[in-house]
Amino acid sequence: MGSNLALRTLLTSTRRFPASRGPPRAVLRLASRPLSVSARCMAPYYAWEPEGPSLKTEIPGPKSKEAIAKLDKVFDTRSLNMVTDYQKSSGNYIADPDGNVLLDVYAQIASIPIGYNNPALLKAARGEDIINGIINRPALGNFPPHDWADVLESGILRVAPKGLNQVFTAMAGSDANETAYKAAFMWRRQQERGGPNVEFTEEELASSMNNSLPGASNLSILSFRTGFHGRLFGSLSTTRSKPIHKLDIPAFDWPQATFPALKYPLEEHAEENAAAEKAALDEVEHLILNYHIPPAAVIVEPIQSEGGDNHASPAFFRGLRALTKKHGVLLIVDEVQTGVGATGKFWAHEHWDLPEPPDMVTFSKKAQTAGYYFGNPELRPNKPYRQFNTWMGDPARALLFRAIINEIERLDLVRNTARVGDYLFGRLEKLAARYPGEFENLRGRGMGTFIAFDNPRRDEFLRRAKKFGINIGGSGQSAVRLRPMLIFQEHHADILIEALEKVVTTWDK
Amino acid sequence: MGSNLALRTLLTSTRRFPASRGPPRAVLRLASRPLSVSARCMAPYYAWEPEGPSLKTEIPGPKSKEAIAKLDKVFDTRSLNMVTDYQKSSGNYIADPDGNVLLDVYAQIASIPIGYNNPALLKAARGEDIINGIINRPALGNFPPHDWADVLESGILRVAPKGLNQVFTAMAGSDANETAYKAAFMWRRQQERGGPNVEFTEEELASSMNNSLPGASNLSILSFRTGFHGRLFGSLSTTRSKPIHKLDIPAFDWPQATFPALKYPLEEHAEENAAAEKAALDEVEHLILNYHIPPAAVIVEPIQSEGGDNHASPAFFRGLRALTKKHGVLLIVDEVQTGVGATGKFWAHEHWDLPEPPDMVTFSKKAQTAGYYFGNPELRPNKPYRQFNTWMGDPARALLFRAIINEIERLDLVRNTARVGDYLFGRLEKLAARYPGEFENLRGRGMGTFIAFDNPRRDEFLRRAKKFGINIGGSGQSAVRLRPMLIFQEHHADILIEALEKVVTTWDK
Repeated sequence: MGSNLALRTLLTSTRRFPASRGPPRAVLRLASRPLSVSARCMAPYYAWEPEGPSLKTEIPGPKSKEAIAKLDKVFDTRSLNMVTDYQKSSGNYIADPDGNVLLDVYAQIASIPIGYNNPALLKAARGEDIINGIINRPALGNFPPHDWADVLESGILRVAPKGLNQVFTAMAGSDANETAYKAAFMWRRQQERGGPNVEFTEEELASSMNNSLPGASNLSILSFRTGFHGRLFGSLSTTRSKPIHKLDIPAFDWPQATFPALKYPLEEHAEENAAAEKAALDEVEHLILNYHIPPAAVIVEPIQSEGGDNHASPAFFRGLRALTKKHGVLLIVDEVQTGVGATGKFWAHEHWDLPEPPDMVTFSKKAQTAGYYFGNPELRPNKPYRQFNTWMGDPARALLFRAIINEIERLDLVRNTARVGDYLFGRLEKLAARYPGEFENLRGRGMGTFIAFDNPRRDEFLRRAKKFGINIGGSGQSAVRLRPMLIFQEHHADILIEALEKVVTTWDK
Repeated sequence: MGSNLALRTLLTSTRRFPASRGPPRAVLRLASRPLSVSARCMAPYYAWEPEGPSLKTEIPGPKSKEAIAKLDKVFDTRSLNMVTDYQKSSGNYIADPDGNVLLDVYAQIASIPIGYNNPALLKAARGEDIINGIINRPALGNFPPHDWADVLESGILRVAPKGLNQVFTAMAGSDANETAYKAAFMWRRQQERGGPNVEFTEEELASSMNNSLPGASNLSILSFRTGFHGRLFGSLSTTRSKPIHKLDIPAFDWPQATFPALKYPLEEHAEENAAAEKAALDEVEHLILNYHIPPAAVIVEPIQSEGGDNHASPAFFRGLRALTKKHGVLLIVDEVQTGVGATGKFWAHEHWDLPEPPDMVTFSKKAQTAGYYFGNPELRPNKPYRQFNTWMGDPARALLFRAIINEIERLDLVRNTARVGDYLFGRLEKLAARYPGEFENLRGRGMGTFIAFDNPRRDEFLRRAKKFGINIGGSGQSAVRLRPMLIFQEHHADILIEALEKVVTTWDK
């Protein structure tokens, strides 16, 4: 494989600790010391990380192929991207059983926050709190741990979006969104009924059991075309990413508005883009006022992620907040993919400078737990057991999020991501200029490392990146999306840029 | 509190190890030795478990009240039953921060399999495999761990129901059921379309994005009245337990059949009960043939659990299997609450002696992970990414289930539950005879410890049980449901019976 030869010139040794045991204790101690500002900018966060990718075989290599054949007998492997050896993966680098080590800018579909085998998380996971949460899983709504308030306040709620001070915990992005929808429906019907003290009618009680009106409400959630909010029945009804996600699955008759399709570079299309955003807002207002099943809430991603990394301006989102407020419709911001630092702010909606917070903000992925934040006490339903399930989240994962937050703060990783993102964007701009047509519609300036571009041979682009030591993902029809971890630094950006350049200069080799 | 005084006579010391550290290593080693058969019947499984309940304050006591007041500011506490100190809970006993220790026959809504702070699980959770799963959570569909086939085969699939050899993993009961529904819809439409190789039409592709036909199918899931299958939008549409679970939430127009309401004692009502079951099957067939949105699947619980512990005979379920087979409708057995040993079989549907397995069996709760089992390869959708999400379950919890299975096998706990269940049922029968009207419709004979009875003052019954050292739950309108762990033994049954007798002999004290 000629490309491997080319690659080896940029690779270095892969010094690493015996994987099953993680870094030695001395390193763990070192890692917990605060770093000086200069060290932050210069040194790698994790000294035991490999210095670069390292390829030993084609991917999948023989051991991976064997694992795939075995797995396929009991588990669908057709969406498999790369068999992974998680014991040998480290920091920004993902390893496979054939000894290949790739720089990972996909990070388990944007869900690894601070690196594989992060020593701070290893320490946390070895701690008695998390172990206790693993072996004694509570039914949180009935039997919360005595220190659950502390766990929330020192973790999930310590990073609550401004203006939101409560949380309903969940398991993953889909149920975080769906429980937020349920809160919206109950809130809206409570308004219509005349407040929390108005009792349900006999007709409501009886008809709800038949899934019919008036007990089961005739309300909707408005979402945007090309948006993604999950794949269970309620969330999938708001997901508009691709037919393959939706075919054959019954869906609610809920409205969708056009998401503004911005043209790049933004500065050359300011007028058209503003017009597209205004048209989108007008459509939202029209649907709120006229859709035959009225929306209780609008859900929107700060950046449509699965749908192709579609951005809109802060002005658009401020307009959406104003519009929903005006019509008494809730605004749910889905930060499942954008949240927890990747855009250079802890929450992407902080970029918008909203005069009033969203009504709910949902989170998962890098948080390693999930849920929705809210502030308005009326979003707690008027009676217990209306918003309830057995586990209602997972304290062990809430504790892990706390450890992640601590590490983000100790290393100032949100600021790191903002700075490295700017550096990476600058290098990509140069690449785009040098190779016309290969890095089209470069987007995400000022949004940390949450950067994407289009490539006309996208799927082949993603596959070939592995030959140059890069694990990278796509989104939408033609986007290559960058989703590095928060510990991605300038030297990783250099390795990435060099490899991307090789991808587009060796198409036919 | 007079009742506390009465209780103290039956209580003993609460010798226990320092909770934060769990049992000493020597005990761990002891626990991993196989026990002789006689020891199994005589000795407690966990020697460090308290010998009985121990009450120090009313519940909630002062420390619990303080914790509730603090928690309520950020987390809805209105469904709170008991603040729990999980560090101090042990085996069958749940502790609170005020020093109260109760025999727990509710077990986190039937989801603790083998005791709080179980030493085998503690050892597993301290092991590098689980720790690795915690800190390096994979996107299983894209980047499965290299040993994922082994983890499945030595765990989840080792206990797969007969005839089912594949699994789709999930997070909890609701999404296990919903992904099973999705599999059913895709399978049915594939049949209608003419097989897996027939491509989607342009019209299907386009209309699916608008949530409309023909892309979004017009099919349903048939469930039973008083059944419970979860609380997200698809699962809630099949849940028919109580209005409070369903009010104000939009629901699909899906059919429901009557679940046979058996009369007790069964031997006195054999003819009526058989007639009720026949009528229910006739109704299912009628709905399959005539409901205006055709069912792709029928979902049923072996014992309707949240809905009030409603049983039906093996003959009923064999009839349901025959009926669904005859009409090409899938049968999904929801073993979320009944599975993993509590009925004296590993899966409750083993009691039915089915000539052909169910098409899918869903699981969660005591498994501590979730998913659906299936056997027919056509239940894998015809293309990748149709059944997919970011995490698709949780390897750390799959490893925990494996450790649970190992312990169930080592201690022969399914057989234990069958034997102790018979003993407990016998004692409850005597109690029911002695106190007419207090233990009505005693049910669950031969179903391990999965036993219930009705009490006319049920909610008060549950509350008062705490005064006698018992944590116990209800289901349906008037049922007291017993959901002990699999390590519940005869001497625990004796403590329980003595306390239940006190509940009904001291109503006015």
